[in-house]
Amino acid sequence: MGEKRVARVTEIVAASPVSLDDAIKVGFERATRTLRGITGMKVVEQRVSVMENQISEYRVRLEVIFVLEA
Amino acid sequence: MGEKRVARVTEIVAASPVSLDDAIKVGFERATRTLRGITGMKVVEQRVSVMENQISEYRVRLEVIFVLEA
Amino acid sequence: MGEKRVARVTEIVAASPVSLDDAIKVGFERATRTLRGITGMKVVEQRVSVMENQISEYRVRLEVIFVLEA
Amino acid sequence: MGEKRVARVTEIVAASPVSLDDAIKVGFERATRTLRGITGMKVVEQRVSVMENQISEYRVRLEVIFVLEA
Amino acid sequence: MGEKRVARVTEIVAASPVSLDDAIKVGFERATRTLRGITGMKVVEQRVSVMENQISEYRVRLEVIFVLEA
Amino acid sequence: MGEKRVARVTEIVAASPVSLDDAIKVGFERATRTLRGITGMKVVEQRVSVMENQISEYRVRLEVIFVLEA
Amino acid sequence: MGEKRVARVTEIVAASPVSLDDAIKVGFERATRTLRGITGMKVVEQRVSVMENQISEYRVRLEVIFVLEA
Amino acid sequence: MGEKRVARVTEIVAASPVSLDDAIKVGFERATRTLRGITGMKVVEQRVSVMENQISEYRVRLEVIFVLEA
Amino acid sequence: MGEKRVARVTEIVAASPVSLDDAIKVGFERATRTLRGITGMKVVEQRVSVMENQISEYRVRLEVIFVLEA
Amino acid sequence: MGEKRVARVTEIVAASPVSLDDAIKVGFERATRTLRGITGMKVVEQRVSVMENQISEYRVRLEVIFVLEA
Amino acid sequence: MGEKRVARVTEIVAASPVSLDDAIKVGFERATRTLRGITGMKVVEQRVSVMENQISEYRVRLEVIFVLEA
Amino acid sequence: MGEKRVARVTEIVAASPVSLDDAIKVGFERATRTLRGITGMKVVEQRVSVMENQISEYRVRLEVIFVLEA
Repeated sequence: MGEKRVARVTEIVAASPVSLDDAIKVGFERATRTLRGITGMKVVEQRVSVMENQISEYRVRLEVIFVLEA
Repeated sequence: MGEKRVARVTEIVAASPVSLDDAIKVGFERATRTLRGITGMKVVEQRVSVMENQISEYRVRLEVIFVLEA
Repeated sequence: MGEKRVARVTEIVAASPVSLDDAIKVGFERATRTLRGITGMKVVEQRVSVMENQISEYRVRLEVIFVLEA
Repeated sequence: MGEKRVARVTEIVAASPVSLDDAIKVGFERATRTLRGITGMKVVEQRVSVMENQISEYRVRLEVIFVLEA
Repeated sequence: MGEKRVARVTEIVAASPVSLDDAIKVGFERATRTLRGITGMKVVEQRVSVMENQISEYRVRLEVIFVLEA
Repeated sequence: MGEKRVARVTEIVAASPVSLDDAIKVGFERATRTLRGITGMKVVEQRVSVMENQISEYRVRLEVIFVLEA
Repeated sequence: MGEKRVARVTEIVAASPVSLDDAIKVGFERATRTLRGITGMKVVEQRVSVMENQISEYRVRLEVIFVLEA
Repeated sequence: MGEKRVARVTEIVAASPVSLDDAIKVGFERATRTLRGITGMKVVEQRVSVMENQISEYRVRLEVIFVLEA
Repeated sequence: MGEKRVARVTEIVAASPVSLDDAIKVGFERATRTLRGITGMKVVEQRVSVMENQISEYRVRLEVIFVLEA
Repeated sequence: MGEKRVARVTEIVAASPVSLDDAIKVGFERATRTLRGITGMKVVEQRVSVMENQISEYRVRLEVIFVLEA
Repeated sequence: MGEKRVARVTEIVAASPVSLDDAIKVGFERATRTLRGITGMKVVEQRVSVMENQISEYRVRLEVIFVLEA
Repeated sequence: MGEKRVARVTEIVAASPVSLDDAIKVGFERATRTLRGITGMKVVEQRVSVMENQISEYRVRLEVIFVLEA
């Protein structure tokens, strides 16, 4: 950040059937479709869902930080 | 959640003159007016406000989770 | 808050080259440009960034609370 | 709060045989007997006690905020 | 507790279609079916689930404390 | 602290229309009017209140530590 | 969860010589051998152990949630 | 606790030149001089102070719970 | 831990009339009567109970970690 | 940070007789005397010390982040 | 650990353009270049940095534990 | 602390076969061998290790605070 800049923090939960890493990418791709100026994301929770004795999805909660236009 | 789904988490504070339970309903009703695809809410703070020696309102802070459309 | 009112909580990060206090003002001014009905802000993180052995900016993370119109 | 006002925060634990909501009221009523200028309370813990396989009491821990006279 | 007593803490999640209070009772009743010597429970999380724009269930996470037989 | 000394911790919320720093002073001055033997204060929360699109007051929550007389 | 259902939460630590992801799978496979009705797991700690200047194992602490039979 | 009882929680810091255990006793003895109806204390912080390369005192922060008279 | 090992974490509360240290031993001895393969314990809470102006018991909450057989 | 870079985090406590802001500067100046490549600092605690009914010093605890040379 | 052993805990932030797992390895390799006797690391934060709509680096904060020579 | 002083905080883990109290002393003695100007230590974690059904060591994690020379 620089001169009097302001960023916003929003929180998403993203799920992937593949892995926690992939869930981060899923979340990032969805976020870039709606938000401009993303500068970073922080992983704040990691979970797996289970159905019929199989891991059915990996799920991450992400804080997404994006700079607001002046 | 299922295949590459993404949800968003937003936070509201809802107040009711009646009870904490009612404050949750007030928050939920307001949230459904603006947000589609709500899947759950988490109570993260519970307070009461006091005026002239009476409990004037019950207040809850809620995380609202709603699925983003693909 | 009063009768069945609902407020929203959003989070921003604001930066100023001057001081932490100024960063709060920077954040507040940017927030009032987009949000109506702000009732308060809570400082949840305070940082400084450093470049070439100088403090280059002061940065605060703020929760912004604003009442939703009924 | 307004011009140079100061409030105090004190903590109580209140118990009711009826419900968590009633425990909040029990705590509030006891607090108003001793403290003037209460402006709010925050619920910081919720428990139940059990005796002989029955819930014997509901118990809340409350932060009580009250304005100090100038 | 008294002379060299030991209790165990276990965690359950209980759900009710009615209310958070009822969810606590649901959890307590299920716990008493399996565990002897319960002395208390602590509410550590409160949530609601939503389906088709209705609150479908109230859910509490409870720590259950029960004394171990010597 | 020294030989078998005991201090007490109490919590206050202090508000100033000027700045967070001033709110700390407001709280300190009020505390010294009632409490003897204060040795320190810890800032545990920092907020601003907003009215009509202006920051109306700066508010700090302070733990006040003071030595009890023997 | 649905009508008056109760789940239990238990905590395990699982280790793999390969990766954190593999440690989650190791934990899940062990858990399914003993527990029925697992619906999810939450990663609450991630560590690596080191022996003779090599990462010898990846270790995760997992909360395992499983529905209790009625 | 029983029927509509209310307890108060207060916080003290107690120091002993001997040990952490002794600091708890020092705090308890001082508390009983001023407060009636103490039912328990919780240790929330443990420290040692050092002067001239010697541990000069052991210090505990204690929450003291005492029942308020009805 | 080594190759694909899994441990379980359980929580107990142990009480001794003597000291916090003794409460840890009480908890450990009770735990070894039921659990095999204990590798460690973590102290997560320390309390004292008071009756008739005397410390009646020291109480610790312990996480107990034990390796599951393969 | 960029390609395979590593930074270190260290913690200092800095005191100033003037203000919390000045304490941050005091800490920063001392840190730059010993550490190269500082990129930022995070304020993790803010206190004031009191002597003879006056605020004698402002004290901040700072996490200092500095890039390690490759 | 064994007889009167002492370890030190230090904190690093490591970045990799590839993945969070790789960032852990980057941090570990850098740490082993300077520190002897590392016994483990704990992941305490996971982030990604974003530049021009791409994830530019994965970043982990690690606690590094290493035994001090006697 | 006084005029523009700066202290550093470092973290160690100390183990003793005897007791938690002794582990604090072990950590303190080791710290004084390397660090000058120690003013205090804070106990941030307490554990016991178990081998062959015996408590093999008591382990404390300590924050060590020491004043930096000007």
